[in-house]
Amino acid sequence: MSLTPSEKVDIARKLDTAGVSTIEAGSACTGAGERETISRVTSEGLDARVTSFCRGIRGDIDLALDCDVDGINLVVPASERHIERKVGTSRGGVVETTVELVEYAREHGLWVEVLGEDGSRSDPEFLTELLGAAVDAGADRICYCDTVGYATPEHTGDVVAELAELGPTSTHTHDDLGLAVANAFASIRAGADLVHATINGIGERAGNVALEEVAIALAEGYDNETVDTGGLYDLGRTVADATGIALAPNKAVVGENAFTHESGIHTDGQLKDDAMYEPYPPERVGRERRLALGKHTGRAGVAATLAEHDVEASDADVAEITDRVTDLGDQGKRVTDADVLALAETVQGRERERRVELEDLTAASGNATPTASVRLRVDGDERTASGTGSGPVDAAVAAVREALGPGRDATLDSYHVDAITGGTDALVTVEVEMSRDAQSVSVAASHADITRASVEAMVDALDRLLAN
Amino acid sequence: MSLTPSEKVDIARKLDTAGVSTIEAGSACTGAGERETISRVTSEGLDARVTSFCRGIRGDIDLALDCDVDGINLVVPASERHIERKVGTSRGGVVETTVELVEYAREHGLWVEVLGEDGSRSDPEFLTELLGAAVDAGADRICYCDTVGYATPEHTGDVVAELAELGPTSTHTHDDLGLAVANAFASIRAGADLVHATINGIGERAGNVALEEVAIALAEGYDNETVDTGGLYDLGRTVADATGIALAPNKAVVGENAFTHESGIHTDGQLKDDAMYEPYPPERVGRERRLALGKHTGRAGVAATLAEHDVEASDADVAEITDRVTDLGDQGKRVTDADVLALAETVQGRERERRVELEDLTAASGNATPTASVRLRVDGDERTASGTGSGPVDAAVAAVREALGPGRDATLDSYHVDAITGGTDALVTVEVEMSRDAQSVSVAASHADITRASVEAMVDALDRLLAN
Repeated sequence: MSLTPSEKVDIARKLDTAGVSTIEAGSACTGAGERETISRVTSEGLDARVTSFCRGIRGDIDLALDCDVDGINLVVPASERHIERKVGTSRGGVVETTVELVEYAREHGLWVEVLGEDGSRSDPEFLTELLGAAVDAGADRICYCDTVGYATPEHTGDVVAELAELGPTSTHTHDDLGLAVANAFASIRAGADLVHATINGIGERAGNVALEEVAIALAEGYDNETVDTGGLYDLGRTVADATGIALAPNKAVVGENAFTHESGIHTDGQLKDDAMYEPYPPERVGRERRLALGKHTGRAGVAATLAEHDVEASDADVAEITDRVTDLGDQGKRVTDADVLALAETVQGRERERRVELEDLTAASGNATPTASVRLRVDGDERTASGTGSGPVDAAVAAVREALGPGRDATLDSYHVDAITGGTDALVTVEVEMSRDAQSVSVAASHADITRASVEAMVDALDRLLAN
Repeated sequence: MSLTPSEKVDIARKLDTAGVSTIEAGSACTGAGERETISRVTSEGLDARVTSFCRGIRGDIDLALDCDVDGINLVVPASERHIERKVGTSRGGVVETTVELVEYAREHGLWVEVLGEDGSRSDPEFLTELLGAAVDAGADRICYCDTVGYATPEHTGDVVAELAELGPTSTHTHDDLGLAVANAFASIRAGADLVHATINGIGERAGNVALEEVAIALAEGYDNETVDTGGLYDLGRTVADATGIALAPNKAVVGENAFTHESGIHTDGQLKDDAMYEPYPPERVGRERRLALGKHTGRAGVAATLAEHDVEASDADVAEITDRVTDLGDQGKRVTDADVLALAETVQGRERERRVELEDLTAASGNATPTASVRLRVDGDERTASGTGSGPVDAAVAAVREALGPGRDATLDSYHVDAITGGTDALVTVEVEMSRDAQSVSVAASHADITRASVEAMVDALDRLLAN
């Protein structure tokens, strides 16, 4: 994944504000663009130490110096596979080079951390010899590397305990076996006092250990506040947006559903006591809790949704509406609060006149300016309007706003389309959140035509908002 | 999240084929739809034990019996918060009810596992008393539950060690602190011999521990084959598609990038030795490795891509192309093999005539049948054609195929659109993979208009495929 210089500077600033001690800002050897970016980070005057990743080559250290970094993360091969097959040298050769490079970097005033690459697959005795020599040569810190995400926590703990005898020890874990966090904590338990982590756990293959997970587990599980956890969600969103590497909804700390309660039992308990189904309050990481609706929804969740929209309902009504919500969920549908309101009208026999209805939609795009027209029925009046935009969806949304007149002050707070896979005829689900005055509503619509799904969702949301 | 009955049966069959011992097929108390689904799973005649989740209520057990399950997962409150505030009973009351229900279930021939809900926040002495009473009453198995993902591995190990003295012990961990895997393994180490896991780690909030991570870590780290790991990727994709809960690209085992190598160092090493940057071969979980191109790409990766497309290039050319690839990456662009081929043409001064060019595109949709027309220039000839489809993208793709004639035999192997967030004018990135005979190519195109981006990507891919 790639970041533009300004995105990287923005992320570095946020990491610094959160209190991260060291920021590895890039590999100076990658190219001129990367060096310019690293230089921009080092010129920010951050409190954090800013470093560059360097291979075991003097030229890499020189390039890092050109970027004015505070220190380097010097990577040298530690396993036979990396020493012989990748670099084509010997154990003795690696030790010699490492000592020379550490001395060279220290002479140039750099803070030096030496990483024994593929350390988890190396001979532990040689790893101790190599990193011990690095410490003797003046390295500030050494690092245990499970480069390929290969080790068990037991092996990790044994090796790190040896290394921690030599000097300050870091740990670098990957998640190929799902053990990145387990190994980071095994390292800490064995004496490591610095963890290499990335926001959202992004990195080669299955990624590195996630900073937000290590930080919140240390804070909540061990009463050890390493960073300001309140900024973790913002950091996670910033990095996901900048890299385009989407977060799974069930990602710990930063995933969309990490503080969402759906099942009836959970929602009911949660409404009785905030801590019933949460290990720590969402505000702790800069978030809010959310109740979701679906197959597992119970009466407490439905009653809470109705109350939020000022709909009064008897216990019997709530029970009936809940049954219908779970029916919708059984069909595999995503249930929004607009669905609950519609079900409530049916159950309570309230014949609600829709205030806004979509009667016609035409959208055209291609080489010309994307253009759309809609015919809406608003309070019985037909209104036709057209609009242009950056694409057919954008044009259609503009046309709806134009046609609506009085509802134009409603804001589109969020527009989300799930990733589309499978084919060009796949069903596309669009979810919008719109608000007007103090009222907000979420609506989902699915259609093979993304323009149609977008407009239907938006018109339904506007209809709900104008009803109040 | 909700699954249709046939989706659930499909997943249950695949779990059974993989060799999972016990399948919790749903909560019979949820509703009639859920019971029908559970019944469909129990009637499949699977080797696995099929169970239903039951609250500590006799009626739930009766509903589970109606579904003809082999056993139940009986959940009873274990922490003060759940006993007093949620259920409104006392410690003595919970023990009494639990004993009665276990006896009742056993009398009806059910296998019984008793879960002490919120066990990680309970008084360990009471948890031992409660689950000990369950074992004495005839429970086949008891389960330690970190219901809210709250515990550290240390606490988990201590409590599970106590429980394992009482009888066969399961563990149920959640990922709120990122510790789901660490706690599952702490449990196993302390004597637990069954892990409650979900495919892709889906579940309430940040989800449960992921089955594929526990299985591969046990197999690779501890030489313990619990399931057939070769089916794990298929299971992950099946569940992601059915639930709509997307996988992060960096998700261990099943994420898109879990076996992708981008950085120059990694790609170079990987081309020398498959195991250089992989803890286990991707085939182990039913996958293939992939080399990605971007800012960190080195010469080895570029050379491999060129060779794959039968392009000969000198070392100097490869170095120059690599520089340009990293420049593209520096701009935050996703680099596909089509980009590398285009850069190679520029660097090598080969004036390649495009065989297929998009001259005009018009797409219209709305209430009428989605319709599109394209004008292509194919080998100098203008070809115009129209098509219809389920949406404007689908219609435009049909029009391109129609216009193309001889290239119609190319297949669209994958069509992917990243999730769209931010607004209706957001840039949409479409990535297509197309193949023809033995040749395949991937192309990405970005545009605010999804139809335009889709057609541009497809036309570029076809142009490449026809060139061979």
